Amino acid sequence: MSSTSDSAGVAVNRQWRLAARPRGLPVAADWAFQTDPVPDPADGQFLVRVLHISLDPAMRGWMNDRRSYVPPVGIGEVMRAGGVGRVVASRHGDFKEGDHVSGIFGVQDYALSDGRGVVTVEVSAAPLTKYLSVLGMPGMTAYFGLLDIGRPVAGETVVVSAAAGAVGQVVGQIAKIKGCRVVGIAGGAEKCRFIVDELGFDAAIDYKNEDVRVALRELCPDRVDVYFDNVGGVILDTVLTRLARHARIVICGSISQYNTDGPAQGPANYMALLVDRARMEGFLVFDYAKRYSEAGMELAVWIAEGRLKSAEHVVQGIDRFPETLLTLFRGENFGKLILSVADEAS
Amino acid sequence: MSSTSDSAGVAVNRQWRLAARPRGLPVAADWAFQTDPVPDPADGQFLVRVLHISLDPAMRGWMNDRRSYVPPVGIGEVMRAGGVGRVVASRHGDFKEGDHVSGIFGVQDYALSDGRGVVTVEVSAAPLTKYLSVLGMPGMTAYFGLLDIGRPVAGETVVVSAAAGAVGQVVGQIAKIKGCRVVGIAGGAEKCRFIVDELGFDAAIDYKNEDVRVALRELCPDRVDVYFDNVGGVILDTVLTRLARHARIVICGSISQYNTDGPAQGPANYMALLVDRARMEGFLVFDYAKRYSEAGMELAVWIAEGRLKSAEHVVQGIDRFPETLLTLFRGENFGKLILSVADEAS
Repeated sequence: MSSTSDSAGVAVNRQWRLAARPRGLPVAADWAFQTDPVPDPADGQFLVRVLHISLDPAMRGWMNDRRSYVPPVGIGEVMRAGGVGRVVASRHGDFKEGDHVSGIFGVQDYALSDGRGVVTVEVSAAPLTKYLSVLGMPGMTAYFGLLDIGRPVAGETVVVSAAAGAVGQVVGQIAKIKGCRVVGIAGGAEKCRFIVDELGFDAAIDYKNEDVRVALRELCPDRVDVYFDNVGGVILDTVLTRLARHARIVICGSISQYNTDGPAQGPANYMALLVDRARMEGFLVFDYAKRYSEAGMELAVWIAEGRLKSAEHVVQGIDRFPETLLTLFRGENFGKLILSVADEAS
Repeated sequence: MSSTSDSAGVAVNRQWRLAARPRGLPVAADWAFQTDPVPDPADGQFLVRVLHISLDPAMRGWMNDRRSYVPPVGIGEVMRAGGVGRVVASRHGDFKEGDHVSGIFGVQDYALSDGRGVVTVEVSAAPLTKYLSVLGMPGMTAYFGLLDIGRPVAGETVVVSAAAGAVGQVVGQIAKIKGCRVVGIAGGAEKCRFIVDELGFDAAIDYKNEDVRVALRELCPDRVDVYFDNVGGVILDTVLTRLARHARIVICGSISQYNTDGPAQGPANYMALLVDRARMEGFLVFDYAKRYSEAGMELAVWIAEGRLKSAEHVVQGIDRFPETLLTLFRGENFGKLILSVADEAS
């Protein structure tokens, strides 16, 4: 890991800032790597030493200058990202030095915060990286998206795409806990083996090496009651041909479309919604903030019982941010992708 | 109207049969006009003199050899169509000569029926054509689609496309009855004037002569809570850019796509469902059969109170079936399109 102090030994704050709006996949020129002094908290603020940064498909959307559920990241601003870290200085009543915290801290070594959107996390309960994964936004997204929007019933068939990803792996395991038949769609034999052998999915479809339409027909003889979609594009269109009556499609993401330079590919088979009396619905996990702790406790119990596992894919070094982000869009990560910028003792 | 009896004065049954599966818009060669003897009812059957035939966008889908909510019309079979008529001979316990009935009788002068899917209608309550319009399937479709799937709340903004069509005109008026702001999208100044001046919509957008996106912004300052979609294509995609939080999109039809020779145009902006936490849901009116009479009574009361009007576009002559059907897809009909094949006294 490159240095976090200058030649005089003073700590510095390395930051990745957005330099330009990408067209298609982000390239080097879209980023600026900058080293600033570590700031001091003002009254009502605290300073976080960022330890692990969450890399998410949604980050690509935040780079566009387009109306969405959050404002775009401005040109010249530190790239927005979730993270976990330790409070190293505080002038805030609710957060004290030594607290471990989770929040939107950006792609940088140190973040100032006024506490909005920040929660403390308990390191004795689970490794800190789990708070970016199954106990963090991906876990919450899976929990509320599946249970509140998908509403699976025991005995139903649930299909999830990006099934070995941060959200997908949790969706499939919760669906199993709820008594469903679960089929995951993932890229490559290794991911498919993982979700079946390690996570307990009933079956997997390797979209890179199998005909998804044929496989769905074989593996979902009673058709698909709930489809949790993380990818959009061709796979969404294919699952639409295999819906059960009154199916629910949970729109969580469309990673296949985030880097297209032009209009996205809409689901041409959407009239299946009429034929099958089905529903396609989007949601945002932030709307469930008041229920995070409820969900967190249930997820923690499932983890403790050994019924809910998760894989984290940890890459070391803040300097590797741009290239590591791209691995998401190539499907190269295996589980939740995390950029680790410092160890716990930093 | 051409003759319904042969040279010897014996009644004949003129029929339009499907001769070939159309690619794109149906052409003359896709149809066969055939004259058969009028059949006699067997035991448990009755014979209907068809008086008025309903021409619906859905008929185009029935001509395709593709999985849908009903089997395709077979090559050589009489084209499927709803209709109203009079029982002229009966060997069925529930239907007697002189009864007026509504059912799926096909594009022909006479239909045999075993009573399945057939209901009697009361000619003293409303003109027979109304039972193919506001008191028939279009009325039921509007009623259940809007109220059960769209679930409008007083004060919300409801937008409906094909607003001067059989379903759209009823959707908009029910939404007004429920206290909503209603904006209709229709083609041409005359239809727009009709839905505002005659039906009481709050505003209309003439998609043939206006920029729908700009007009929606002006006419829906609080965005769109319920969109009842009959058309798909560009208009659906445009409304998706203007959804209110937790909007509901009712998928009722996609007439702009029924004659495309290739894959339909999917809604490229469907990720608005996520941004706006919105829902897109299909339905089929047939699922509500047990509640038709409930809906029929409420609709009849609204008609009696003068709160629910409807336009029927009646074309005379079964021989004009193929060309008349095409007017639907050119948006030339004004209100519910009906092919009248005989007068009440026939």
